[in-house]
Amino acid sequence: MLLSVTIAGPALAQRGAPAVRSPEIHPDGRVTFRLAAPNATDVRVSGDFLPAPQPLQKDEKGIWSVTVGPVKPELYAFQVSVNGVSAVRGPLNIPGAAPMFFDMRPVPHGGIDQRWYSSKVIQTTRRVFVYTPPDYSRSSARYPVLYLLHGAGGDESGWTENGRVNLILDNLIADGKLKPLVVVMPYGNAYPPSSPLAEGADAMRRQRDLFRRDLIEDLIPFIQTNFRVYSDREHRAIAGLSLGGAQALGIGLSHIDLFSRVAGFSPAMGAVTSPQAGGLDFKTLTADSKKVNDRVALLWVGCGTEDTLFESVKQFAGQLQTSGVKHTFKVTEGAHTWHVWRRYLSEVAPQLFP
Amino acid sequence: MLLSVTIAGPALAQRGAPAVRSPEIHPDGRVTFRLAAPNATDVRVSGDFLPAPQPLQKDEKGIWSVTVGPVKPELYAFQVSVNGVSAVRGPLNIPGAAPMFFDMRPVPHGGIDQRWYSSKVIQTTRRVFVYTPPDYSRSSARYPVLYLLHGAGGDESGWTENGRVNLILDNLIADGKLKPLVVVMPYGNAYPPSSPLAEGADAMRRQRDLFRRDLIEDLIPFIQTNFRVYSDREHRAIAGLSLGGAQALGIGLSHIDLFSRVAGFSPAMGAVTSPQAGGLDFKTLTADSKKVNDRVALLWVGCGTEDTLFESVKQFAGQLQTSGVKHTFKVTEGAHTWHVWRRYLSEVAPQLFP
Repeated sequence: MLLSVTIAGPALAQRGAPAVRSPEIHPDGRVTFRLAAPNATDVRVSGDFLPAPQPLQKDEKGIWSVTVGPVKPELYAFQVSVNGVSAVRGPLNIPGAAPMFFDMRPVPHGGIDQRWYSSKVIQTTRRVFVYTPPDYSRSSARYPVLYLLHGAGGDESGWTENGRVNLILDNLIADGKLKPLVVVMPYGNAYPPSSPLAEGADAMRRQRDLFRRDLIEDLIPFIQTNFRVYSDREHRAIAGLSLGGAQALGIGLSHIDLFSRVAGFSPAMGAVTSPQAGGLDFKTLTADSKKVNDRVALLWVGCGTEDTLFESVKQFAGQLQTSGVKHTFKVTEGAHTWHVWRRYLSEVAPQLFP
Repeated sequence: MLLSVTIAGPALAQRGAPAVRSPEIHPDGRVTFRLAAPNATDVRVSGDFLPAPQPLQKDEKGIWSVTVGPVKPELYAFQVSVNGVSAVRGPLNIPGAAPMFFDMRPVPHGGIDQRWYSSKVIQTTRRVFVYTPPDYSRSSARYPVLYLLHGAGGDESGWTENGRVNLILDNLIADGKLKPLVVVMPYGNAYPPSSPLAEGADAMRRQRDLFRRDLIEDLIPFIQTNFRVYSDREHRAIAGLSLGGAQALGIGLSHIDLFSRVAGFSPAMGAVTSPQAGGLDFKTLTADSKKVNDRVALLWVGCGTEDTLFESVKQFAGQLQTSGVKHTFKVTEGAHTWHVWRRYLSEVAPQLFP
């Protein structure tokens, strides 16, 4: 499912490099990584299936290789570095005996639409990814809508490319476990981190606030004009992972007039509560617990025990508990990785609009 | 417009690498490339704006850099290699005084939809990219449709990522030069070149024939069921670049019952006429020149004089001439690059359904 980035022109081809098969997955679950790099002196593979980067060995033809594993069936990400610089990246899908919940199955498939909308708030044109369910184009129905946010360092393509949102939801719908919905995946920063506009002391606060306003003032109206979604709060949810998880909780609970379902996957709470991020105060936001409990049909927070953010998420959940705010705090295995977030999506999506 | 490929998990971050700005475009059009690579011993930049790869120089902090140019305003592609392995790739857009025909302008934007369809011919699920014009989602009209094919080494995302099909057509539509149409961009191989199914003596012939059948038997019906396009030949065109250009000419002229407009951009004729590719014989295909002239409203072939394929394309055009087949043979500047293909699309699109 990874989009390959094709680069134009013969000038850019790696001429003379022999084709090697990499990664090669063996029947026993071991994996061989290879790279043709006769002029490299240090080649390593790393990924979320390895405790530490593994060096590759060079043969007499300049082909580097290493075999690792066996690796447990799962969808991973790997990267191969050459002399310390990441050069090859991609997914590593170790198949199990049966298709996983995120695998392509012969079921009806929804679509992923890229749209460009004009943001008056940020004064630019922004790209958004939208999942539409399998029956969307042949139906005249309206659908509930989930706004789904990526993490720091990611972008609007993340939930499609790494999260497999479309395949996960296609499978749930095919299995009768999920009523069709539309999922909107925006870019969660006002400005790319590389932009000069993202520099300076107020940058993070500005980032968070402009994105919140862009979502509410520009994106939601754009989606409602261009997609057949319900426009009431009862049919509108917000969720996200890591930074996006904290943003979803912050925006959702600040705007319960707009969102009735709110979820944070491994939320990086400090990214919205710290003074430089705007100092969002969840205690104040949820002080009127009766109002929150009456209005928010689902408040879901999940975190893996191996996640370095676990203690801070647990603390946030404890605070919700103390304030008498109804919520689900799901503690699972796992660290701060897509393995966890794909499972959270699969678990939470059917609970949003049951 | 390049889709960034975000990779999950802290394990994959390049820890300790200082952030550098690259490429940095200076006001005079010179460009500085930088890379943090303290452990590399050879770093070069190449691209379609350089006659040959340029070495970068390392400073005491391990940051490599080189400044090239000035570079003429245009959209290029660059890659930076580390010890002989391509590590960083991306677009290089040198802005001119005014927006170029492929630049994002504040005009209404169409969308790029990814869909997955079931191919009975290839017995798999395949992804297709579809451009829908700006008014598509708020209209109930039907649109003419162009099937647009990528080149060898590319895939279904190529025309979006490198070709900027959506921005080129958005701009033409906004300027009143193009009536809205839908553009369908399939994957032009039956099997990825890396697949074991693409190996062996008959592989190329099988690739070409299965793709042709997939397009006709599976993709066209899928598009007509899921998008509001006209389903008659008068409103159906096919075009492509390089390998896809030869495929478009071959499929289009073999099926003038299905296509009324056919265009090849720098077509790699040998890729469909050679014996191992199925030995398509255009002389036979166009022998009934009256029928072709009556039925094919536009037969367009273009090639740049610096293209290594130029002589073979000129020979094909000469053969059309000799056979009395009405056609346009457009000779331009340029080599076998996206610079040429973006311009051809911009020139041909308005001629398809005037």
